[in-house]
Amino acid sequence: MPSPSTLLTDLYELTMLQAYWAERMNATAVFELFVRRLPSHRSFLVAAGLEQVTDYLLDLRFAADELAYLAETGRFAPAFLASLRDLRFTGDLDAMPEGTVCFPDEPIIRISAPMREAQFVESRLLNLIHFQTVVASKAVRCALAAPGKVLVDFGLRRAHGAEAALLSARATYLAGFSGTATVEAGRRFGVPIYGTMAHSYVQAHSDESAAFAAFARAHPENAILLIDTYDTERAAHAVVRLAPTLAGEGIAIRGVRIDSGDLGEHARRVRAILDGGGLSAVTIFVSGNLDELRVRDLLAQGAPIDGFGIGTRVNTSADAPYLDCAYKLQEYDGEPRRKRSEGKATWPGRKQVHRRYDSDGLWRGDVVTLASHPVPGVPLLEPVIRAGRLVAPLPELSAIRQRVDEDVARLPESLRALDGEAPPQVEIAPALRALAAEIDACT
Amino acid sequence: MPSPSTLLTDLYELTMLQAYWAERMNATAVFELFVRRLPSHRSFLVAAGLEQVTDYLLDLRFAADELAYLAETGRFAPAFLASLRDLRFTGDLDAMPEGTVCFPDEPIIRISAPMREAQFVESRLLNLIHFQTVVASKAVRCALAAPGKVLVDFGLRRAHGAEAALLSARATYLAGFSGTATVEAGRRFGVPIYGTMAHSYVQAHSDESAAFAAFARAHPENAILLIDTYDTERAAHAVVRLAPTLAGEGIAIRGVRIDSGDLGEHARRVRAILDGGGLSAVTIFVSGNLDELRVRDLLAQGAPIDGFGIGTRVNTSADAPYLDCAYKLQEYDGEPRRKRSEGKATWPGRKQVHRRYDSDGLWRGDVVTLASHPVPGVPLLEPVIRAGRLVAPLPELSAIRQRVDEDVARLPESLRALDGEAPPQVEIAPALRALAAEIDACT
Repeated sequence: MPSPSTLLTDLYELTMLQAYWAERMNATAVFELFVRRLPSHRSFLVAAGLEQVTDYLLDLRFAADELAYLAETGRFAPAFLASLRDLRFTGDLDAMPEGTVCFPDEPIIRISAPMREAQFVESRLLNLIHFQTVVASKAVRCALAAPGKVLVDFGLRRAHGAEAALLSARATYLAGFSGTATVEAGRRFGVPIYGTMAHSYVQAHSDESAAFAAFARAHPENAILLIDTYDTERAAHAVVRLAPTLAGEGIAIRGVRIDSGDLGEHARRVRAILDGGGLSAVTIFVSGNLDELRVRDLLAQGAPIDGFGIGTRVNTSADAPYLDCAYKLQEYDGEPRRKRSEGKATWPGRKQVHRRYDSDGLWRGDVVTLASHPVPGVPLLEPVIRAGRLVAPLPELSAIRQRVDEDVARLPESLRALDGEAPPQVEIAPALRALAAEIDACT
Repeated sequence: MPSPSTLLTDLYELTMLQAYWAERMNATAVFELFVRRLPSHRSFLVAAGLEQVTDYLLDLRFAADELAYLAETGRFAPAFLASLRDLRFTGDLDAMPEGTVCFPDEPIIRISAPMREAQFVESRLLNLIHFQTVVASKAVRCALAAPGKVLVDFGLRRAHGAEAALLSARATYLAGFSGTATVEAGRRFGVPIYGTMAHSYVQAHSDESAAFAAFARAHPENAILLIDTYDTERAAHAVVRLAPTLAGEGIAIRGVRIDSGDLGEHARRVRAILDGGGLSAVTIFVSGNLDELRVRDLLAQGAPIDGFGIGTRVNTSADAPYLDCAYKLQEYDGEPRRKRSEGKATWPGRKQVHRRYDSDGLWRGDVVTLASHPVPGVPLLEPVIRAGRLVAPLPELSAIRQRVDEDVARLPESLRALDGEAPPQVEIAPALRALAAEIDACT
């Protein structure tokens, strides 16, 4: 991703930095990013966005024009702004690998760096991890609802801006979608791209069949015809009548798309028309206001649908468009810290999450503890950046997809179900409880 | 805004363009962008995003590396890709001015251009108009709930990516907010920027009062102190004790911020503590999961709150994160067109919206008709681009804010209320109904 401006930050990061600078406070700070609670209709989350966070940290710097703007605001001391010229991320990043299934109260990311760096990156880190985690956690539900089906991200038009469109193409793909309609996501991330035609194409022709024929000739290997502009079944019959002519030219129609009406009922009728016309190889693709529940219902009815174009409701995660997440100071200059605001208290110290499995390899539960006090189970946070340098190349999207698959497969059915239960509260290890109590007693 | 790649588009725009190119179809097409229906909890919309759409159209072109990627996909004919090198927007754009109050079925934007240009721009036009209209239509409700109060956009961290953060700062500001915490929105759009401190700043100091004093000294003219890290009222007393020392140094604390607990109750207690300590000039600012309903409730209780930091629920428009909007072909090569898909039929032809007012200047209703058949009332769509060139400079954000104010003030109370009614169905003029019937009869 081309980075947006380093000024894509909350003003308070900079006002705090100026205060820290004036106080000469820049000891090592440990911050952790976590989700406080799950929205309804989510039994687990899929952590996503780490690659973009890593790029952001490695590329962090202020450009001259950005510093010039800050000077113009009249809010900052010139010597402080001069100090920002040299700001780089020189610290450590530990994180759950992208695609890890995770739960509330578990640190997804831990930053350990000089205070000014660790504080400054808060806004963009949250912005990047939050959004992709929201979308991946929604998209994985679609994948669970439609095993073996083609799922394509159609969400660019109603995604919240350009970056949301690109990153949701990435997040849906890593969570199990087959690809996206957004061309730039193909170029940037290598996500497979899919595309058919719009109603306007059919409307622009005076005859629907002529539109189908012209499109198929322009795309002899990829013709998916949109058949609901006027009358869906009539259009399906037109496809059947057209097929022999096209076949004579060496063109096989690949599929049809239905975008309105009762999708299940239309799919059944269209399937019968196509099969009756010898076109059993032509696939049926549907779209229009879909989400995991509608997809599940269509398949449960036995609708003969091969693929789904899924947009708005997943790209915006319409039933839960945000997560209650935070990036909190847990340690400063070697001393553990704890926020105690009502309803928003945090667990102090530098933490790790250990995952436990039963003898069949199924997920049994997670324990959050101090990194210095390991407990049994697989530790989830791994080193990503040390002293400002990448520890090892990040995984490819294909490997992230596989991790999602494996992690989800190990969850109990009670959490994998679309109307699954709330997960058990994550276990807080005794060492961590003891530290929290100790801090509370001292203040 | 720096434009994202021209490949930020749906693949089907390009597959259609190749078909049009193969068919040598490029006559003038008229497309209109409109919203099909209002979500619950919205009685009207505020049209927004026109400036970004205009920039997009004026700057439209494919870069060499973008065409190279398209060639690599193997989906396109080289001669077709060569034709894209010269693609520019040479057509016309008519639109409601930004900040216009609008309703379903009303064209917000009309594009009239050679088919390939008019079709290609669909995805990004929708992406830009949809999001800012969603946010402005939510933010204006906050402004209605809190007349005279300071409202600040705090939403960067949970906005859906970088562009959503920037554009929602712009959209909330044009809808009546006072400013934003997002620094880059200050630089790009001139939106006033606001910032205080985070809990981490207080936590990093071993003593809360020391943190307050250090921050105030680093920001002698702008110190707003966050007082809920440990115990809100205890911190308010600390502020009172600290004030005389700071006053001796010429520093006046400007305000306090409360971010957790019962905000109304804390505000009352803190106000009493501050007033009792002679700090009646110190303002109280609150934040934390706010939206227009919570703001209204807090003010209805008489909570002594001067300003609100409003983030996630407005930036993501959490109760209605998307609008059912579309960009549809209404005329091709001089012939009106109509889509008749179930539940998604469109009104054909090149249209205009006329707004009627009663003798007191209050809104009485809108009529949608053919542009060629004007009816009484003020026409809302105005020329913005003609033959690829801007007709006149676009309005400043300050003028857009004023338009929102005026348009909203002319609405009846039944639509302005937060739990307002659904607006009356927009009136369809007889000429338009007659045209639709004529098309249906011919096909």
